[in-house]
Amino acid sequence: MKRSERLVAMTNFLLEHPRVLISLPYFSEEYGAAKSSISEDLDIVDEMFQYQGIGKLETVAGAAGGVKYIPLYSRENSIRFIDELCKRLEEPERILPGGYLYMSDLLGDPDIIRNLGKIFATAFADKRIEYIVTVATKGIPLAYAVANILNVPVIIVRRDPKVTEGSTVSINYVSGSSRKIQTMVLSKRSLPEGANVCIIDDFMKAGGTITGMQSLLKEFNANVVGIGVLAEAEDEEEERVIDEYYSLIKIQDVDIKEQRIEAVKGNYFTE
Amino acid sequence: MKRSERLVAMTNFLLEHPRVLISLPYFSEEYGAAKSSISEDLDIVDEMFQYQGIGKLETVAGAAGGVKYIPLYSRENSIRFIDELCKRLEEPERILPGGYLYMSDLLGDPDIIRNLGKIFATAFADKRIEYIVTVATKGIPLAYAVANILNVPVIIVRRDPKVTEGSTVSINYVSGSSRKIQTMVLSKRSLPEGANVCIIDDFMKAGGTITGMQSLLKEFNANVVGIGVLAEAEDEEEERVIDEYYSLIKIQDVDIKEQRIEAVKGNYFTE
Repeated sequence: MKRSERLVAMTNFLLEHPRVLISLPYFSEEYGAAKSSISEDLDIVDEMFQYQGIGKLETVAGAAGGVKYIPLYSRENSIRFIDELCKRLEEPERILPGGYLYMSDLLGDPDIIRNLGKIFATAFADKRIEYIVTVATKGIPLAYAVANILNVPVIIVRRDPKVTEGSTVSINYVSGSSRKIQTMVLSKRSLPEGANVCIIDDFMKAGGTITGMQSLLKEFNANVVGIGVLAEAEDEEEERVIDEYYSLIKIQDVDIKEQRIEAVKGNYFTE
Repeated sequence: MKRSERLVAMTNFLLEHPRVLISLPYFSEEYGAAKSSISEDLDIVDEMFQYQGIGKLETVAGAAGGVKYIPLYSRENSIRFIDELCKRLEEPERILPGGYLYMSDLLGDPDIIRNLGKIFATAFADKRIEYIVTVATKGIPLAYAVANILNVPVIIVRRDPKVTEGSTVSINYVSGSSRKIQTMVLSKRSLPEGANVCIIDDFMKAGGTITGMQSLLKEFNANVVGIGVLAEAEDEEEERVIDEYYSLIKIQDVDIKEQRIEAVKGNYFTE
């Protein structure tokens, strides 16, 4: 295989296997090239990935060594993307009764979700995350996109038990905004004891849902090593019960009368 | 930019923009190369994509022309992948009370979901799909993966209305297996009138849920141009109410007493 062909094949292979250690002999054999040529190829790939702001190759030396593609989304690209998303969130027709915002169209757009996944994966790149946890329903595509890049499984906490989940652990908690008792369940076999998990959700007000998830995860002795929410908004009646989290967007104000929304960058960019 | 660098950059760009028409002048400008060089680059990329079984480049001639990456997963790769997945489904510890199978671990594995997405995207490549529709909860990652490759939005039908969905259309239907009346809701603004949609779900027995989705989609005058389910199983009490669909896996038999499961390739591979 020629260098030009190898580069296409390797680029594709590396993008498809984020965070997986690939040994140089694997590439050597697969593409029928000397290790020295493969090394040169990898240098070119690394340089271009960094130039394009999509990540870097990490080299692990030694007999068990190789190369790993670490997807990273540059800060510059992230900010540009979130600024644009804020503008879209400020479209007045998003305002729903009660001052809620319609966001399902954005959460269903694969291009948007892919980029959000990259931003969160970058934010949590050093956290040794083993599982992404989210709660049904709207956060699932986002959680899946993050998991896809970190190359770890997604675990979905449900509001209602289902027969196809097997035996479950459930907790009751008080939702911050509605003050109602709610239930969350997680399949017992979905998460091993003591795993490092990252919670991803689409929206946070007082943070009751996330506190609920933390309690549920405590039953599995999980370490919550990161919390990421796409958008946060302040709750007028309730103080925030979570302090360590990343938000990408902050809904500053929703003025129903004036039909005006103010969305700004979240704490991930400002703190 | 050198050819070797361009090839890495273009491969990444094309993989990130499936089914999007990219004009040659765009690449020319972006990478500072003559159109003739870009054409040669694209030939190499196309050849390697086909060699790796991940798709092809489609060239559109003329002034408004350019090139489009069409992701396709080769039949050979698909069959190998599904055969392995069937083996995993046959692990006896998956059997749940009532003869159900635990599948959440597979549906949460990003590698598996990515490949399943590719297979469905290939199956429906010619269908001019504008939206992927699924029902909460377990089918969402799969639907998102298909949407990601077809580059169209995902729409999630819910079992319960939520304030953040705005006004909704809801229908009641009788579930095939449990014979209970169930509800499905879809946000009114999520789907424009007369769109071409593809239904994706994780599991089908008699097909009641999918019939329900079809009725709901009729309220939006949508054309259901494809139906894809990961796994199907026969319902002993109920005849199948859907006939045109693709399944990737067929659960042939679950023997609770003998703790034996038989999973085989679905109709997409056998018909």
